[in-house]
Amino acid sequence: MKRVAIIGVTGAVGQEFVLSLNKHPWFEVKQIAASERSAKKKFVDAIRDPNSGILKWHLREPIPEYVKNMTVDAVDDINPENFDLIFSSVESEAARDIETKFAKYVPVISTSAAYRYEADVPILIPGINDDHIGLLDIQRKNRGWKGFVAPLPNCTTTGLAITMRPLLDQFGAQKIIMTSMQAMSGAGRSPGVSALDITDNIIPFIPKEEDKVRLETGKILGKFIDGKIDPAKMKVSCTCTRVPVLDGHTETVFVETATHVDPETVKKAMQDFSNNVSTMGLPSAPKEYLMVNDDPTRPQPRLDREINEGMTTVVGRLREDTVFDNGIKYVLFSHNEKMGSAKGAVLLAEMLYKKGYI
Amino acid sequence: MKRVAIIGVTGAVGQEFVLSLNKHPWFEVKQIAASERSAKKKFVDAIRDPNSGILKWHLREPIPEYVKNMTVDAVDDINPENFDLIFSSVESEAARDIETKFAKYVPVISTSAAYRYEADVPILIPGINDDHIGLLDIQRKNRGWKGFVAPLPNCTTTGLAITMRPLLDQFGAQKIIMTSMQAMSGAGRSPGVSALDITDNIIPFIPKEEDKVRLETGKILGKFIDGKIDPAKMKVSCTCTRVPVLDGHTETVFVETATHVDPETVKKAMQDFSNNVSTMGLPSAPKEYLMVNDDPTRPQPRLDREINEGMTTVVGRLREDTVFDNGIKYVLFSHNEKMGSAKGAVLLAEMLYKKGYI
Amino acid sequence: MKRVAIIGVTGAVGQEFVLSLNKHPWFEVKQIAASERSAKKKFVDAIRDPNSGILKWHLREPIPEYVKNMTVDAVDDINPENFDLIFSSVESEAARDIETKFAKYVPVISTSAAYRYEADVPILIPGINDDHIGLLDIQRKNRGWKGFVAPLPNCTTTGLAITMRPLLDQFGAQKIIMTSMQAMSGAGRSPGVSALDITDNIIPFIPKEEDKVRLETGKILGKFIDGKIDPAKMKVSCTCTRVPVLDGHTETVFVETATHVDPETVKKAMQDFSNNVSTMGLPSAPKEYLMVNDDPTRPQPRLDREINEGMTTVVGRLREDTVFDNGIKYVLFSHNEKMGSAKGAVLLAEMLYKKGYI
Amino acid sequence: MKRVAIIGVTGAVGQEFVLSLNKHPWFEVKQIAASERSAKKKFVDAIRDPNSGILKWHLREPIPEYVKNMTVDAVDDINPENFDLIFSSVESEAARDIETKFAKYVPVISTSAAYRYEADVPILIPGINDDHIGLLDIQRKNRGWKGFVAPLPNCTTTGLAITMRPLLDQFGAQKIIMTSMQAMSGAGRSPGVSALDITDNIIPFIPKEEDKVRLETGKILGKFIDGKIDPAKMKVSCTCTRVPVLDGHTETVFVETATHVDPETVKKAMQDFSNNVSTMGLPSAPKEYLMVNDDPTRPQPRLDREINEGMTTVVGRLREDTVFDNGIKYVLFSHNEKMGSAKGAVLLAEMLYKKGYI
Repeated sequence: MKRVAIIGVTGAVGQEFVLSLNKHPWFEVKQIAASERSAKKKFVDAIRDPNSGILKWHLREPIPEYVKNMTVDAVDDINPENFDLIFSSVESEAARDIETKFAKYVPVISTSAAYRYEADVPILIPGINDDHIGLLDIQRKNRGWKGFVAPLPNCTTTGLAITMRPLLDQFGAQKIIMTSMQAMSGAGRSPGVSALDITDNIIPFIPKEEDKVRLETGKILGKFIDGKIDPAKMKVSCTCTRVPVLDGHTETVFVETATHVDPETVKKAMQDFSNNVSTMGLPSAPKEYLMVNDDPTRPQPRLDREINEGMTTVVGRLREDTVFDNGIKYVLFSHNEKMGSAKGAVLLAEMLYKKGYI
Repeated sequence: MKRVAIIGVTGAVGQEFVLSLNKHPWFEVKQIAASERSAKKKFVDAIRDPNSGILKWHLREPIPEYVKNMTVDAVDDINPENFDLIFSSVESEAARDIETKFAKYVPVISTSAAYRYEADVPILIPGINDDHIGLLDIQRKNRGWKGFVAPLPNCTTTGLAITMRPLLDQFGAQKIIMTSMQAMSGAGRSPGVSALDITDNIIPFIPKEEDKVRLETGKILGKFIDGKIDPAKMKVSCTCTRVPVLDGHTETVFVETATHVDPETVKKAMQDFSNNVSTMGLPSAPKEYLMVNDDPTRPQPRLDREINEGMTTVVGRLREDTVFDNGIKYVLFSHNEKMGSAKGAVLLAEMLYKKGYI
Repeated sequence: MKRVAIIGVTGAVGQEFVLSLNKHPWFEVKQIAASERSAKKKFVDAIRDPNSGILKWHLREPIPEYVKNMTVDAVDDINPENFDLIFSSVESEAARDIETKFAKYVPVISTSAAYRYEADVPILIPGINDDHIGLLDIQRKNRGWKGFVAPLPNCTTTGLAITMRPLLDQFGAQKIIMTSMQAMSGAGRSPGVSALDITDNIIPFIPKEEDKVRLETGKILGKFIDGKIDPAKMKVSCTCTRVPVLDGHTETVFVETATHVDPETVKKAMQDFSNNVSTMGLPSAPKEYLMVNDDPTRPQPRLDREINEGMTTVVGRLREDTVFDNGIKYVLFSHNEKMGSAKGAVLLAEMLYKKGYI
Repeated sequence: MKRVAIIGVTGAVGQEFVLSLNKHPWFEVKQIAASERSAKKKFVDAIRDPNSGILKWHLREPIPEYVKNMTVDAVDDINPENFDLIFSSVESEAARDIETKFAKYVPVISTSAAYRYEADVPILIPGINDDHIGLLDIQRKNRGWKGFVAPLPNCTTTGLAITMRPLLDQFGAQKIIMTSMQAMSGAGRSPGVSALDITDNIIPFIPKEEDKVRLETGKILGKFIDGKIDPAKMKVSCTCTRVPVLDGHTETVFVETATHVDPETVKKAMQDFSNNVSTMGLPSAPKEYLMVNDDPTRPQPRLDREINEGMTTVVGRLREDTVFDNGIKYVLFSHNEKMGSAKGAVLLAEMLYKKGYI
C-alpha cells in the first residue's frame, strides 16, 4: 500500500478525497491536515460549524469510519518523507508554498490553480492527455525535485476538455462557445454560497473562471513536443454562471469543426472514444467514460450525478449548429466534486501509479 | 375608455393581463373568459386548485379588486362586437380558431404562437419594430377582417431582439449564439413545472423553443419593404434550458458584428437607443427601456425582476468575445411575465391606440 | 417465487414498487397496470410527460431493467387468479372498486385510504402491530373473500406510530401534539406539487391529512381484542404542512406520558425497541428500525433519507417538554416514499408471507 | 428631525434599518457605523463580498440613495452626544459593551439579546405591552443613565407574543406548544445560511432560540407592577427549525385556554384587538396589525410577506385543538426582517417619540 496524506482535508474537496480513498486498494491515508484553526481536533469535530452546530459534511455517503476519529494535523506537522504521495486541496494563497514544500520530496496531486499555468507543469486528465506525463520528468529535472506537482484542471474545464478530445481529433474542432451553469458545491464550504444569494436566482459571474477554462482547455488538448506543450489552436469563449443546483456542472457547448459533421457521426465518435479510453481497469474509472444520451431532456444534474458515482461525463442534445459553417452543439454534464475534483485526482494517482510515477 | 376583454384569463398570462390592466387610463376590462371548466365561476374561485385548495395566483401583487368577483365566461359567450380590443392568452391548440373568430371584428393582441409565422402578421415589440405595423393594414385587407391579430413574440425572444436592435443597426450583428436559463413561470400554471422535476436541477430542453427564437428574432429585426417583412440576415443558434428560478429569463449571448466593437461603444449604443426609444410616454413603458449594469454580478433574476415593474431589459457583463472575428458577449435579463408577456402586450396595445389602430 | 402484479404502476408509489421489487428474493413482478391513458405502452414510454418530454421517474436509482420494456396493461386486463399477491397504489376514487374486485381472489396490499377505516381492516406496520394480522382472517370470513385488503397507513402516520410504540408501551403516552413538514413527493407526480407554489414557500395545509393521522395513530396502536381493534386512548392533534423538500417527512412531536420520563430513558426505550423489533431478517427490513441521533442538528431530510435505503425512522432532539406535566419532545424523520409507502408495503408483504398469509 | 445613528449597518438588520429610515418623517440618519473591517468605506463598497464580488444587499427594494455614498465609520467614531437616538443591530458579543457605552448618553433601540433578560429592561412590542415603558424610567434611575436600552424580542417571539395578547386577555391562555419554520434571512448575512446546508433540507435546531422564545413570551405578556415585570404564568414549549424560505417565519401554535373557545370567537377577538391597537397613526404601523385569513392554505411566507410591507402578523387555520381540554390551534406568519426586526424597531422608536421618551 502506498502511504498518502491529504492536505486541506476539512474543505469540500478534502472531504471528497476522504471518501474517494475509503478502502482504496492501492492507497492508504496515513495522515490528514488542514489549517491551524482545525488542527489537533478529530476530523468529525473539525468539520462542525461552531455557530450553527451543523456538521459540514455535505456528501450523500456517510463519513467513512477510518477518518472519523483521525486527528487533523497542521500542515507543518506533515513530514513529506513519510509519504509516497500527497493529495492537496488547499484553495488559499498558501497553496503554492505548501505544494512547493512537499513536491521537493514527494509527488503532489493538487486541485488548486497554483501551478497550473507553469510551462513545465502538465494539467492531466487521465484518458485525455496521458502523454503529457512526460512533462513531469522535465519538471523534476528543471526544479531539482524528487517529487512533482500534478494539478487537476478547474472543475469547469474537465467536462469540456473530455468532450472536445474526440471532436478535436476526429473533426478538427477549432472554435468553442460555452455557457456553464455551475453547481453551488463548486464554490466550497467555508462559507460556500449563501442561500440568500442563490435561492430563486442565478449569479452570472464566477471570478477568474472563464479565463481558467480558456487557458486550460487549450493546454490540456495541446501536443507534447520537444519537451513542451504546444496548446491546441482552438479559440474558446465562455460565460460562467452559478445556479441553484447542489452538485454537478451543466454546460451548453457550440463547436465549429474543420469539416462538416452530423450528430450521428459525432455520437459514434464519442462512444468509440469512450470504449477505448486508457483509464479502463483503474479502480476509480467509470464503466462509461463518456456517455451520449438520446433523451432530449438529458443531461439533468440531479439525475446524472448519480451515474457511475459521478465519474461519467454525460452528453445530450447533440444537434447541428446553424451559426458556424460546420457546427455541432450539445449539452454536457460533469460532476464537479467527483470526476472534476477529488475522485478525478485519485483516478490520476492511479494512472501515475500504474506508469511508475508513484 | 376602450372596452377590452381578456381571453384565457385564468392562466399565468391571463392573470398578468388582469394586473396590467388594473386602473389603466385607457382600457377597461368589461368581460373575462376562459375554458368551459372555469366558466360561470367568479374569478377568485376559478383560479383555486380543486385538489390542494391552493389559490393559483402567483403574482407578488394581490388580486385587483375589480376582477375578484367578476364572472369568468366561456369563450363562446364573448361577443366581439361589444369590444374595442381583445387580449388573448389562450395556449392550447384552440388559439388559432379563437383568434380568427374575434379578429374578424376587432383587434386581437395575443401571446400565443398561432399566427406568429404567417407572412401578413407582424411580431411587434414596441420600440423595436414599430414600422412593421403597416403589415396590419395588409393583413386586414388580405383577410377581409375588420380587426387583426397582433401576436407578441415568445418570451425568450423578447430580450434577445431588444438587445440586438442597436447591435444590428450600429454594428451589423450577423451571428448570434445564445443560451437561455428560463424561469419556471414561463411554463404556465396548469399544471406548470413540477417541483419534483426542477428542484436542485436543470432541464436542458424546452420543446420548440429554440426554433421559435431563431425564426422570431429574424422576423422582428427584419425590414418591412414592399408590403413584406424581409427577415434580418443574421444567423441565430441557441440552447434553451429551464432552471429553478421563479420569474425572469436570463440569457448569455455571443454576437459577431460586421466591424470591430469594444464594450464601451456597445454600452453607449445601448444606452443611446434606450434614451431615444419610441415607447416613451406610454403608460406601461418603463423609465429605462434597456439598462446596462457595470456590476459584473448582474443581472440577477431575483433582483432585476423588480426594476421598473419588470419592463426593463437588463444587460450585464458586456465584454469582447474571443471566438468571433469581431465579437461581443453579454448576459441579459428579461422578465418573461412582464415585458415578455402580458404587460408587454398592454404596452403594444398602448402604441397601437396612439397610432390609431385601436 | 410468488407471482405479483402492481396496479397504479406509473404513479409515484407505483414506481417505488417497481424499484422495491427489483431482484426480490420472494416476489416476482409478472404484470403491471395503470389507467387507460397509459395502457399498452411500454413502462418507459408510459411515464414520459407528453408535453415537456420529461421522464417522470424521480427516484435516485435508475429504472430497473426488468420493467423498462414491460407493457403497462389496463387494470381490467389483470386476472387476479394469476397472482399470489397484488400491490395497489391507485390514488383515485377508483381505488375502492379496484381493491374490492381483486381482494375477492387474492391478497391486496394497498397504499390507498380506501379501506383503512373499516372495522375489519387492520392498518399494519410490520414491527408495530403484527398481532392485528388476525383481523385479516375475520375480514376474509366477513366478506367471503379468498384474499383480503391490507392497507398501509398514510405516510405521515408511519413515523409517528413507530416512535409512539415504545412511548405508549413503556411510559403510557396519552397526548400527542405534532407538526409535520412534509416532502413534495408525498403529493404524487401527476401533476404533483407545482414549483410555482412551493419554491421559497410553505403551504400550511394538506387536505384531510390531519384527520388521517389522528384516526390511524389510534387504530395502529390499539389492541386487537375479541376480534376487534380497540383504539389507543391517546389524544392526537396535529398541523400538517408542505415544505420545499424533495423526499422525507419531518415531524416535531410533543408527548405527554403517564409518568415522568427523562430523555435518556426514552432514548434507551427506543433503542431497545429497535433492537428487538420483529422485522429482523425480512429482506426489506433495515438494520436499524428506529435510530436516535444525539447530534442536535439531526434529523435532516437530505441526509437522513439515505440511511438504510429510507427504511429507518430517525429521532433527534429528544428533550423534556415543559408544557405537559410529564412530557417529552423530539423531532422525527420518516421517508415517505420508502418506509412510509411502497417499500414499507413490500416489508409488510414479506411479513405476511412469513406468517403464511401469502 | 431627530438625529439618529445606525450601528451594525452592514449586517442584515442594519440594512433593514437603512431602508426603514428612508425618507422617515421624524428621524434622519446622520451617521452609520460597523466593525473595523468595513470602516471608512462607502456603504455600497462595504457591503460587497470581496471574494465573489456579490453585493450583499438582499432586500427587494433598491439601496436608498441617501446611504449609497455615506461613509461607514467605526463604532468608536460615534459620539453619542451628537444624537437623539441610536439604532443598534450588533450581533456579536461586543453588543453589550457598545449598547452600554451609548445608553449612558442617549436612547438605544437594539435588536440584540444583550440586555433583554435584565430585570430593569423591558422587551417592548408596540401595541402589545406599551405600559412596560415605565420600566425605562426605572432603568435610567437605577443605572444613572441619560439614555436607556430598549431591546426588541427575538424575531421568533414577535409573532407569537402578538397573537397571544388577545388569547391571554380574553381567554386566559395558559399553555403554548409552538413549532417554528424559520426563514434563512433570520440567520444573518455574514456568512448566513449556506445553500449547501439548507437546499432541499430542514435544519431542526437553532442554537438558544427555544429558550429565548419561552423567556421572552412570558416577559412581554407579563404585568408591570410595583416597578417590576411579573411574567405571564403561561407555560411555553417549542421546537425551532430552519427551512428553505428566504424571508418570514411560519409558526404552528397549539394553545390551552382557561375556558372553552371556538374559532369564530377567537377570530373576532383577534380582529377586535387589531382594530383597536395602540400603534394606529404611527408612520411605520401597518393598516392591519393582526389579520386572520379564512383561506386554509394561508399564511404562506412568499405571499404574506408582502402584506403591508411585512408589518402585519397573519393568522390562518384557526380551529379547535383536540388535545388540550380547552384548546385552539392556528398557524401564524411574521416577517422576521420587518415587524420582527428593524422596521419593528423603528415602530418602537415612533411610539417612544410620541410618548416623549426620545
